[in-house]
Amino acid sequence: MTLNTYLQHMNGSYLFTEIVNRTQAYQAAYPDAQVLRLGVGDVTRPLAKPVIDAMHRAVDELAHPDTFRGYGPEEGYEWLRQTIIDHDYRPRGIDLTPGEVFISDGAGSDLGNLSELFDRTNRVAVLDPSYPAYVDATTMAGRAVTFLPSHAENGFVPDLPKEQADLIYLCFPNNPTGTTLTREQLQVWVDYARKHRSIIIFDAAYEAYITSPDIPHSIYEIEGAKEVAVEVRSFSKSAGFTGVRCGYTVVPRETGMTAMWLRRQCTKYNGTAYVAQRAAEAIYTPEGKEAVRADIDYYLGTARLIREGLQDAGLQVFGGVNAPYIWCRTPDGMGSWEFFDWLLHRCRIVCTPGAGFGPGGEGYVRFSAFSPRAHCQTAIKRIKENI
Amino acid sequence: MTLNTYLQHMNGSYLFTEIVNRTQAYQAAYPDAQVLRLGVGDVTRPLAKPVIDAMHRAVDELAHPDTFRGYGPEEGYEWLRQTIIDHDYRPRGIDLTPGEVFISDGAGSDLGNLSELFDRTNRVAVLDPSYPAYVDATTMAGRAVTFLPSHAENGFVPDLPKEQADLIYLCFPNNPTGTTLTREQLQVWVDYARKHRSIIIFDAAYEAYITSPDIPHSIYEIEGAKEVAVEVRSFSKSAGFTGVRCGYTVVPRETGMTAMWLRRQCTKYNGTAYVAQRAAEAIYTPEGKEAVRADIDYYLGTARLIREGLQDAGLQVFGGVNAPYIWCRTPDGMGSWEFFDWLLHRCRIVCTPGAGFGPGGEGYVRFSAFSPRAHCQTAIKRIKENI
Repeated sequence: MTLNTYLQHMNGSYLFTEIVNRTQAYQAAYPDAQVLRLGVGDVTRPLAKPVIDAMHRAVDELAHPDTFRGYGPEEGYEWLRQTIIDHDYRPRGIDLTPGEVFISDGAGSDLGNLSELFDRTNRVAVLDPSYPAYVDATTMAGRAVTFLPSHAENGFVPDLPKEQADLIYLCFPNNPTGTTLTREQLQVWVDYARKHRSIIIFDAAYEAYITSPDIPHSIYEIEGAKEVAVEVRSFSKSAGFTGVRCGYTVVPRETGMTAMWLRRQCTKYNGTAYVAQRAAEAIYTPEGKEAVRADIDYYLGTARLIREGLQDAGLQVFGGVNAPYIWCRTPDGMGSWEFFDWLLHRCRIVCTPGAGFGPGGEGYVRFSAFSPRAHCQTAIKRIKENI
Repeated sequence: MTLNTYLQHMNGSYLFTEIVNRTQAYQAAYPDAQVLRLGVGDVTRPLAKPVIDAMHRAVDELAHPDTFRGYGPEEGYEWLRQTIIDHDYRPRGIDLTPGEVFISDGAGSDLGNLSELFDRTNRVAVLDPSYPAYVDATTMAGRAVTFLPSHAENGFVPDLPKEQADLIYLCFPNNPTGTTLTREQLQVWVDYARKHRSIIIFDAAYEAYITSPDIPHSIYEIEGAKEVAVEVRSFSKSAGFTGVRCGYTVVPRETGMTAMWLRRQCTKYNGTAYVAQRAAEAIYTPEGKEAVRADIDYYLGTARLIREGLQDAGLQVFGGVNAPYIWCRTPDGMGSWEFFDWLLHRCRIVCTPGAGFGPGGEGYVRFSAFSPRAHCQTAIKRIKENI
């Protein structure tokens, strides 16, 4: 037996361990310090009442022989797949059939597993900085990664790859930068993929945060995208499902991969929890939509508070308008860990150092609007006093 | 971009489609026929009350800011991992730490994903017949498969592989044959793996059905197994969790793969649903244990009814004592699809043809004790009248 040496020799998930270690060391030295955590990437508001009610009903169904549900379809129940099409796609003029929509236990699994559709020799391109799992999943599969720098100087619109990119992970609204692409900017990527026979894995986990009218909500708003793009969505950041575990992935027929993905899922996945699928369905009711909208608006209000507060403090910030993340350039040319330490020691604030999202994140830190609003207000005050 | 040609050229999941097609054709020709489905591999009894109560409580926690849970640890909550050790392992003299236990959304995902720990060149051995996902997951990863014949003539105790086997999928109590290995028989496999530096992926999804005292419940009851075995368990068939989605996998430190599996899960899995983990915890309360035991006993009672009924009808049967499956040799040298058709047309009974579980299943069919008991009684009566 030979181990997967790519996986075997990977570093641990250094970023969050290091954040925890530095924060704990500070807390140990200053036990009375009120440390404010503004790095958190997890939602904090409870589930909406229509979702809770739907989950209770689903649990009750599982308690009786006549309504009990065992294995569901590996691709998810059709009532949920049709509901998604009716609400997330048809109103935007995008035609899909339920056979092209696959319910998942969240974007995290699919973003990694989708690479199984491709030969190992494919070259993978990722934005730099980016959500670390794209690079990690690619590395553990023994594939090469091309980094596409994304920074203030190019307006967070990365240049097209110079060498052939077979698979391209795009995430917009972006984590960690909070930035977006316009329709025209996204069209450039779709055109590239069509010309070079590439596939775009489009991570739209933060779609619900889009407020600007010129920003596409789905890559399928772009001409030709159905031939070259798989779209991965999640209810985690829209409806607070990080502990519920439900999302979905669209694999259009035009990609030629729909049957392959179904075969993969039927072999290596036994379907999403029934209770989670009923919870997801409830998001699309009028009451569900209203409740989810209120949560998003709340988080966006917090994002605005952080964004404007940092600007008032003289810092250069990006994102936070169509995304829950604010990407902040470090002052005075500080490194991102250096600014992390300054924030921790001078302001008792924990952020996320940009370098943790790839070399291109150096010189930035990420603040999250999922943090309690009162903490954000205090944090801004402390930064203004110390900077 | 190049597709994964191994996956691209795989057949569809022929078995169940073909069963459905033949059954529908029969129903169309004889619309009044009362067809009895004895092939079903899914549980049919509702969740136990302690589990339902725990799920309602968990849902309520998600409704309030102070008790809301978002992302949990990718490897599962420690309270559940410790509970599993305390109840499933320590009483059998097996020492494990929570760091070696990984909560999953069910055995199906882990059985496929575990192969990511190994280099692509590894050779995989599977019992023949077996649960089709082992072979399918291996094939789509581009790995070669060695079949280990398991049939009445060798007492369903397969011979050791003649060529090197790097990964060995073992499932006991077995699906589809319902047979088991004694401690001595399992020791032979552990010794083989130690000598040949192989890893055994031990699928113990049907462990709860073991009634004979000489049958090991865990592979870790076998000397040296911690060095060479990963054990995959599921609450699907024990507590009826096929729609709840929760199981667990043990990766002992001695395998040298514990950190690798954690890294894989942290990259490509975002943890098991909170509600499902609380549901699993409730199985281990005194009330939960009692309720689960009652369900298992009910299914085992049905298994006995099928087993003895088929024997009375003059058929040769295996399994059904420590497993919910009865493996029945076809009479008069019939092929397994031939006997399937005979049962459908003469007795209006749907079973699962053995050939669907691999070439070694030819000449057998599988009956399932998850089928409604009244249907099983009627089915046995019909077989006796027609055979």
